Amino acid sequence: MGMTMTQKILANHAGTDTVSAGQLILADLDLILGNDITSPVAIKEFAKLGTDRVFDKEKITMVMDHFAPNKDIKAAEQCSMCRSFCGEQSITHFYDVGEMGIEHALLPEKGLVTAGDLVIGADSHTCTYGALGAFSTGVGSTDMACGMAVGKSWFKVPSAIKVVLKGSLRKYVSGKDVILHLIGKTGVDGALYKSIEFTGEGLRSLTMADRLCIANMTVEAGAKNGIFEVDDITLEYIKFHGTKTPKIYKADDDAKYDEVIELDLSVIEPTVAFPHLPENARTFGDIGEVRIDQAVIGSCTNGRLEDLQTAAEILRGRKIAKGVRLIVIPATQQIYLDAMEQGLLRIFIEAGGIVSTPTCGPCLGGHMGILAEGERAITTTNRNFVGRMGHPKSEVYLASPATAAASALTGRITSPWEVMGI
Amino acid sequence: MGMTMTQKILANHAGTDTVSAGQLILADLDLILGNDITSPVAIKEFAKLGTDRVFDKEKITMVMDHFAPNKDIKAAEQCSMCRSFCGEQSITHFYDVGEMGIEHALLPEKGLVTAGDLVIGADSHTCTYGALGAFSTGVGSTDMACGMAVGKSWFKVPSAIKVVLKGSLRKYVSGKDVILHLIGKTGVDGALYKSIEFTGEGLRSLTMADRLCIANMTVEAGAKNGIFEVDDITLEYIKFHGTKTPKIYKADDDAKYDEVIELDLSVIEPTVAFPHLPENARTFGDIGEVRIDQAVIGSCTNGRLEDLQTAAEILRGRKIAKGVRLIVIPATQQIYLDAMEQGLLRIFIEAGGIVSTPTCGPCLGGHMGILAEGERAITTTNRNFVGRMGHPKSEVYLASPATAAASALTGRITSPWEVMGI
Repeated sequence: MGMTMTQKILANHAGTDTVSAGQLILADLDLILGNDITSPVAIKEFAKLGTDRVFDKEKITMVMDHFAPNKDIKAAEQCSMCRSFCGEQSITHFYDVGEMGIEHALLPEKGLVTAGDLVIGADSHTCTYGALGAFSTGVGSTDMACGMAVGKSWFKVPSAIKVVLKGSLRKYVSGKDVILHLIGKTGVDGALYKSIEFTGEGLRSLTMADRLCIANMTVEAGAKNGIFEVDDITLEYIKFHGTKTPKIYKADDDAKYDEVIELDLSVIEPTVAFPHLPENARTFGDIGEVRIDQAVIGSCTNGRLEDLQTAAEILRGRKIAKGVRLIVIPATQQIYLDAMEQGLLRIFIEAGGIVSTPTCGPCLGGHMGILAEGERAITTTNRNFVGRMGHPKSEVYLASPATAAASALTGRITSPWEVMGI
Repeated sequence: MGMTMTQKILANHAGTDTVSAGQLILADLDLILGNDITSPVAIKEFAKLGTDRVFDKEKITMVMDHFAPNKDIKAAEQCSMCRSFCGEQSITHFYDVGEMGIEHALLPEKGLVTAGDLVIGADSHTCTYGALGAFSTGVGSTDMACGMAVGKSWFKVPSAIKVVLKGSLRKYVSGKDVILHLIGKTGVDGALYKSIEFTGEGLRSLTMADRLCIANMTVEAGAKNGIFEVDDITLEYIKFHGTKTPKIYKADDDAKYDEVIELDLSVIEPTVAFPHLPENARTFGDIGEVRIDQAVIGSCTNGRLEDLQTAAEILRGRKIAKGVRLIVIPATQQIYLDAMEQGLLRIFIEAGGIVSTPTCGPCLGGHMGILAEGERAITTTNRNFVGRMGHPKSEVYLASPATAAASALTGRITSPWEVMGI
């Protein structure tokens, strides 16, 4: 029986030739990630494990991004604990305020992940790195602790769904629309504990920003991981950012998939996920008049340079609607600098928006734009659960940077096609 | 008996020719200010006053700056209440996220205050506008509510201290050093309920940024207000920013002062106020080795363009010390844009700092850089009380932008003269 991309990576890291879906394996870890919320719990658990040192100071990374720059005393204490631990353990890849960015944007940018890697992270959107052809998945803080101690983790080998992409995206349609469309089809548990493997000639039309966004949200379909077949676009990205040598795993021709979904990119329209689940995907024929109070462009899903470029293209020379707060959050310091250099930050501010330092911020109700009762936000983040961005009676609508920018201009949820006359 | 500058403004607004220290007067208000923390209380009190409308929708301003962009649900609810009230009352000068800045930097920039005005604000640093030759003072939220209803407020006419300035400041010494030096002499209650009136030929060497900073911190000496004699520098600033006609009040030659302090600007050195009071002023002969975890450059005291220019001059081409978080907060959207245009923001980020959107942020322990137990910050803000920037066991050292920048570079409290080889 042939193996999927994911199964091949797992087999390799378990030191075996073959694995099959459902099998329990103990696999070597190439990288273990934690952030300022999850690492403190892992650090406490690590202290109980009877080992003084982490297994490899080069293969652990902690990123202070969720409630940093510290939003309150508790956040400050959490960052302080991570800082001390990384200092004591001489952990190389500790990213503090000033060096940091949102973890899932930062790690690929810093070249800490490459094709063929096995990565766990105490953050559910760790699956982002599947865009690079890596197996990466979110785990709990206890798994992070054990991983830091021994450099290995147990996995149940997942079965898989294959998504075969064809065609290419239309103007102002992006990876975010693709994944919202897909989750709209599968539902939030449609890929429970499965891999979603993306392949097909349509890959050619997806930028790395598109792929990182799509992989990021595969967990919103319940997936264990999302993974993209490696192509020249991946390799070019890895070469530009990477310090590690990529290892390419291709699915066998006779790999078994639970399901094969064919997706024609050219028919995908700007898509919005209504409250309170990412599966509530609608296109503009079914959206109607939905007033908004806030638009957020950023996060590990859509805070990359390409996302800001698209938003700026729509906002350039225009003013956002009175009464709307537009909050733009470049995902890393480098993206912030690049966006500044390209004049994008000026466009956001002149349009009436604000630019935050990199942080997860409002995505998970952290800070930098929390919603009051009854308020509505359109946002490029990845979850719209009840109370996710603030008050339990607020509403979060998920969309692409283009749609969020267009909506900021009109004050209601608006297609970029309407604003740009397409 | 002659009158001081402050007394003349108060007399004029009370519709009388003369007032004297200690007298109670009812005076007309030119502007009433509230922020996102103090306005909600005022709005609730206003509702009890039996009037439906504010006295003048042009003479009230609310600025969402303290915990905005909303740091949590409570902050969101407070901003929401202000937004609704200003909407219902058609208040012209409501500044929300995207339009805003730190109140005491924003109001002069927007031309909302001019020389001769009488301004109250539900924020203790409302005394900032004395730099423009206005009488302005902080009040409680109840006074703000009554002011909004009737456009008048009761005052006890203050007596005054005259500060006669001579000489000019040395390189990398600024208004912040002047006011820390002065508070070091007077103590935090040395000017209790008095005016501090600044005059003398030394005025010529003080920029408006210096003066706004000095007036801002007169409340830290206990003063009712600080006020500067109007000169060409003031008038040029007002002309550039202003929409209102200035009215110049000069103290009478025979005005009575409780005290006259002569201050030679040329002898003032870089000065740091040690925890936990602004009066604990020290110069570098008495500072020793004080390690820091964080440096903050911003606030209503020192977040102006001149402040950022000075900090950038020191940070340009250098890297901050490992383990130090440098947080730079331009005080308004306009300052942010200007600093970006001048390449200052790039300098801060390349040095290893971060740039926040305008907010009061960490100054009052709000967000964007709160301290953990045992941490130390050097900061250009105005108060170093116990727990002001976070944990009760953290420490805050007040200094100028030049000193904060120099300290970020070395990781210990450092004179800009040392770093710049003066």
